[in-house]
Amino acid sequence: MTQDDRYVIGLDYGSDSARAVLVNVYNGEIIATSVKYYPRWVKGLYCDPAKNQYRQHPLDYLEVLEATVKDTLAQCPADVAQKVVGIAFDTTGSTPCFTDETGTPLALLPEFKENPNAMFVLWKDHTAVKEAAEINELCKRWHTDYTAYEGGIYSSEWYWAKALHVLREDEDVRAKAYSIVEHCEWLPAILTGVSKSSDIVRSRCACGHKTMWHPEWRGLPEEEFLTTLSPLLKGFRDRLFTHTETADKPVGHLTKEWAERLGLSTKVVVAGGAFDCHMGAVGANITPHTFVRVIGTSTCDIMVSSYEEIGGKQIQGICGQVDGSVIPGMVGLEAGQSGFGDVYAWFRHLLAFPLHKIIANSGLIDAKTKELLIKETLDCIFPTLTAEAKKLPIGESGIIATDWMNGRRTPNANQLLTGTISGLTLGSDAPRIYRALVEATAFGSKAIVDCFLNQGVKIDQVIAIGGIAMKDAFVMQTLSDVLGMPIKVCRAYQACALGAAMFAATAAGIYNKVENAQKAMNSGFAQEYLPNPENTAAYAKLYAEYQKLGAFTEANV
Amino acid sequence: MTQDDRYVIGLDYGSDSARAVLVNVYNGEIIATSVKYYPRWVKGLYCDPAKNQYRQHPLDYLEVLEATVKDTLAQCPADVAQKVVGIAFDTTGSTPCFTDETGTPLALLPEFKENPNAMFVLWKDHTAVKEAAEINELCKRWHTDYTAYEGGIYSSEWYWAKALHVLREDEDVRAKAYSIVEHCEWLPAILTGVSKSSDIVRSRCACGHKTMWHPEWRGLPEEEFLTTLSPLLKGFRDRLFTHTETADKPVGHLTKEWAERLGLSTKVVVAGGAFDCHMGAVGANITPHTFVRVIGTSTCDIMVSSYEEIGGKQIQGICGQVDGSVIPGMVGLEAGQSGFGDVYAWFRHLLAFPLHKIIANSGLIDAKTKELLIKETLDCIFPTLTAEAKKLPIGESGIIATDWMNGRRTPNANQLLTGTISGLTLGSDAPRIYRALVEATAFGSKAIVDCFLNQGVKIDQVIAIGGIAMKDAFVMQTLSDVLGMPIKVCRAYQACALGAAMFAATAAGIYNKVENAQKAMNSGFAQEYLPNPENTAAYAKLYAEYQKLGAFTEANV
Repeated sequence: MTQDDRYVIGLDYGSDSARAVLVNVYNGEIIATSVKYYPRWVKGLYCDPAKNQYRQHPLDYLEVLEATVKDTLAQCPADVAQKVVGIAFDTTGSTPCFTDETGTPLALLPEFKENPNAMFVLWKDHTAVKEAAEINELCKRWHTDYTAYEGGIYSSEWYWAKALHVLREDEDVRAKAYSIVEHCEWLPAILTGVSKSSDIVRSRCACGHKTMWHPEWRGLPEEEFLTTLSPLLKGFRDRLFTHTETADKPVGHLTKEWAERLGLSTKVVVAGGAFDCHMGAVGANITPHTFVRVIGTSTCDIMVSSYEEIGGKQIQGICGQVDGSVIPGMVGLEAGQSGFGDVYAWFRHLLAFPLHKIIANSGLIDAKTKELLIKETLDCIFPTLTAEAKKLPIGESGIIATDWMNGRRTPNANQLLTGTISGLTLGSDAPRIYRALVEATAFGSKAIVDCFLNQGVKIDQVIAIGGIAMKDAFVMQTLSDVLGMPIKVCRAYQACALGAAMFAATAAGIYNKVENAQKAMNSGFAQEYLPNPENTAAYAKLYAEYQKLGAFTEANV
Repeated sequence: MTQDDRYVIGLDYGSDSARAVLVNVYNGEIIATSVKYYPRWVKGLYCDPAKNQYRQHPLDYLEVLEATVKDTLAQCPADVAQKVVGIAFDTTGSTPCFTDETGTPLALLPEFKENPNAMFVLWKDHTAVKEAAEINELCKRWHTDYTAYEGGIYSSEWYWAKALHVLREDEDVRAKAYSIVEHCEWLPAILTGVSKSSDIVRSRCACGHKTMWHPEWRGLPEEEFLTTLSPLLKGFRDRLFTHTETADKPVGHLTKEWAERLGLSTKVVVAGGAFDCHMGAVGANITPHTFVRVIGTSTCDIMVSSYEEIGGKQIQGICGQVDGSVIPGMVGLEAGQSGFGDVYAWFRHLLAFPLHKIIANSGLIDAKTKELLIKETLDCIFPTLTAEAKKLPIGESGIIATDWMNGRRTPNANQLLTGTISGLTLGSDAPRIYRALVEATAFGSKAIVDCFLNQGVKIDQVIAIGGIAMKDAFVMQTLSDVLGMPIKVCRAYQACALGAAMFAATAAGIYNKVENAQKAMNSGFAQEYLPNPENTAAYAKLYAEYQKLGAFTEANV
C-alpha cells in the first residue's frame, strides 16, 4: 500500500444479507469484506411464506450498512478510511417502499414501524399477482403498451403491481403515502442527505426495468393510464420523476452524520444505485454477447448489446431492455429465474421439518446440544444430498420437476405458475428428488437461453457469479451439461459488490467510464465447467419432458 | 370360560407383520392377540425399493407363525390349547413363489436360500411391469380375453407376470422351478403335510382373482396361450391345477410335527386360504352392497353381490369378480389402491432423510440417545403433520397430488403410472404437502367408488378396517368428506384375522356357512365418520383438478 492508494467501498444488498467490499481502485484488490444478515429478516418478521409475503424493514438496511462498512474498515490499517473516495450500492429489486414527502420510508415513522405494508416489498414477494394481471390487461388495450421494453409482461414482482396492492390493502399507508422509492435509490439518497422525495436520484436500472419508464413516452406511463388502473394511483406520477440516471454518475457526497456513523470522510462520493445483478454483471466483466448469471436464491441473467445489434427490436419474454442499465452507452437486457437456490432451500426446509418441529421440542437432549445438532444437521443436508444425487445416472429416477415454486420470471413472466414434481414412486428418495430439482432449475435456465437465441441475441459465453456458482460444483456441472455450454465462474466471491466498487470508482472520477474500471479492477475467473456432450444429449430428452409438464401447468393456471 | 368353549385361531399375514387372534367360536370374543414382524423383511433384506423389488423369505412366514400362535396360547389358561378346533390363514396376494415337485418354495432349498427370485414375490413388487403389458397385449388378441373376470387389465402385481419375470431373470430358478404356490395356499399345505405340489389345495380367491382361472374356460388359460406368451412357461399349466376351493372347506388337519411346534392338537382343522382383504371383509361383516375397505399400506376394497345382480356382467376396471372369493355362494368383487398408507410412509421416509443419513452419523450425541431420538422423532412425524395439516382450510395450499407412487391398481390397473405433486410454492411446507397426499389417497378412493357406481353396482354403506381406519381420524374424516359417504369402522382391531377365525370355525364344522359364523362372531362397529356436505362440495372441485393431473400423467406414460 502506498500513499497514493485509493479505495472504494462496494455494497451489495442481497435477499438475506448485505456485504461490503473495500477495494483498491487501481488493481481491484479486495482488501476487506464483511457480510451481515438483516437482523429482523432472519427472525422471519413481517413475512408470511404461505402467502408469499416478504417484507424488509428499512432499519435492517441501515444497521447492516453501518456494521459492514465499519467491519471492513476495522480489518484495514487506520489510514485506509481517509483514502476511501467512493461508495456505491447495488440491491435487490424491484424492492419498492412508500415514502412521505421527505423521502422517508413510512416504516421509519413511529406509527408505521411494525406495519409490513410500510416496509420495502422484497423482489420475491408475490402478493401482487392480481395487480400484475390488471396492469398487463390494461397495457394490451391501451394505445401504448408500456411493457414493451420490459419483456411484454409486467410481473407481480415489480413496482406498480406492489404499490397498487399495498394501497388497496392498507388504508393507513394509503393516507400517508406520498411517493415511492426503490431500495437501490434510497440508500444513496439517505447517505447524501436528501430531504425531499423529489430530490431522490432515480436509478436508470430500476426505473427502466420495473416502472415502465421509457424515453419513448417521455418517462412514466401517463397519468390517465395509472388512474384507469386504479384511482388510488392518482397523483403519484407527478410526485415521482421523469428523469433517471445511470449508476456511474455521482449522486452527492456523504453527509456529516453518515460520514461519522461510517467512519469515512465527507469527501466520499456516493454513486447512483442499481440492481445487484446489473452491477454484478459489470463486476463479472460483462462484454457484448456474454450471458452473465448471478446464481443465488434466484438467478438474474444479464446481457449487454450494442444499439446496432438490438436496433428497434423489442425482445419478447424477458424482464426488460434498458439503455444504460448495466454499462452506460449499451442496452442492458435482463432475464432470470424467480427461484433457483430458493428451490433447493425449499426442499431443505421441507426435510428439516422433523428438526424444527419435533427434535427442537424433544426432552431427550439438552438445549445446547439440540441447537448444535440441528445446526450440524441443517449444514449437512445439501452436502449429503449432493453426494448421493451425483452418483445417479441421468434419467434413472424417472422424476421430472418444474422449477416454478416461486413463479416464473422468464421466459414469459407468470407468477401464477407453480412447481410440480412428477414421476414419483415409493423409491423416490430425497437424493433423487433433489437431483430432479437441480435438473429443473437447469432446464429453467435453458428455457431462458433458448429465448434469447431464438430472437437473434447471440450468446458467446456464459459467466456465472453468486453463491451457488462459487460453491456448488454439482449444480454448475448439471447446468453446463443441460445448456451444452461452458460456464466460467468469476474469481471474486463478491462480484456484485465488486461491480458496485467499479461504479464507485467511476463516480469518484478515477475512471472516465465503467469499462475502464472493469479493465483495471476485474478479478478474472476461478474455474470453468465444460459440458459433457453425452450428458447434454441425455438431458435433451428430459428437457422435452420438462416442457410437456410445464405446458400442462400453464394450461391449467 | 366353560368346558364347552371352543376356540379357533385366525392368522393374518400382512405386508410387514403377521398377527394371530385366538377367538371364542360362539361369541367372537378375542381372547388373545399376537403380532410379530417378519425378521428378515424388517432388515430390508432381498428388497430394492428403487427397483420396486419386494421379496419375502418363506422362513419369515414360518417363524412368525410359530411365534404368534405360541404367544396367543401363552396368554390363555393352559386348557385352551386343547379346545382349539380350527386354524385359518389369510395373506397378502398375489404373492407367488416357485416350488419344486414337493411343493417346497425354492428359497427353502440350501442352494436358493439367499436368492430373492426363489422367494415369495410380495404383492407390491412391481418388477414385472413389462410382463403384465405382454399379457394384456396377448389377451386382447387371443380368442378368449382371460382377463375378463379380472377387471380387463392384468396387473404387474399378479401371478403370471411375476412368474414370467422371475423365469426370465434367473436361470437357476428357471432350471429348478416345477410349480407355483400362492402364499395363502402354502401355509395350509405345509401345516397339513402336503408333499407333492399337485396336492396343494388351490385357493378360489387367489386363483380366481390373479391366475386368470375361470370355470368359463375350465381352469387356467390354455397351454398355447401361455407358451405364446413365453416358451419359458411351457409345462407349468399341467403341473398346476384345474380345481380351486373356497376357504370355508377344510384342507386337512395339523401334522404331528406342526401340532407339536404350535402346541396344538392334531385334531385341529386347517381351513383353506384366501387373501387378507377377502377374509377381512367377512370379519368386518360384509353383506351385499357394502363397500368394505381394508385400509393399510394399500387398500383392498371388497364387495359381494348376488348372481342376480351381476348376471353375466363383466365389471370393467376393477381387480376381479370371482364366485366364492369372499362368501361362498356370492360373487366377490375386488378393487383397491396400490398405495395408501405407503404414500404417507413414503413421505415420512422422505422427511426422515436427515435422521437416517445425518443424525445417525453425528458425533454430538451417544449411540443410545441417538437411537432414542431417531425413534421418538419418527414416531412423532405423523402426529405432528396431522396436527398442522388438519387446521388448513380445504384448497388453501393449492397443492394437488396424485396417489400413484405405487402405480394404480383400480380403476383400470396401470402400474406404470407414477405420483405427482403439483401446485408447489416456496410456502409449501410439510403439513401442506401431507394434507395434499391424504386428499390424493381419498381422491383415488373416490375414483374406485365411482367406477362401481357407474357400472350399476350399488353401494349402500362403507365399512373400513385396517390400521389406518382404526387409528387415523384425520385420514378417515377426509375420506368420508371426499366420498360424501358415512364410513363405519369395524370394532375388531384385527378384522382380517377375525375373518380368518370365522373361516376356521366354519371349516371346523361349528357353523354350516360363513354367514352364520359372521352373525355369531362379528365385533360390531367402534366408530362412524359422517361427511360434512360443505367439505364434500369443496373437495369436488379439487377432485376435478386431481382428474386433470391424472389424465396428464396417463397421457404421458
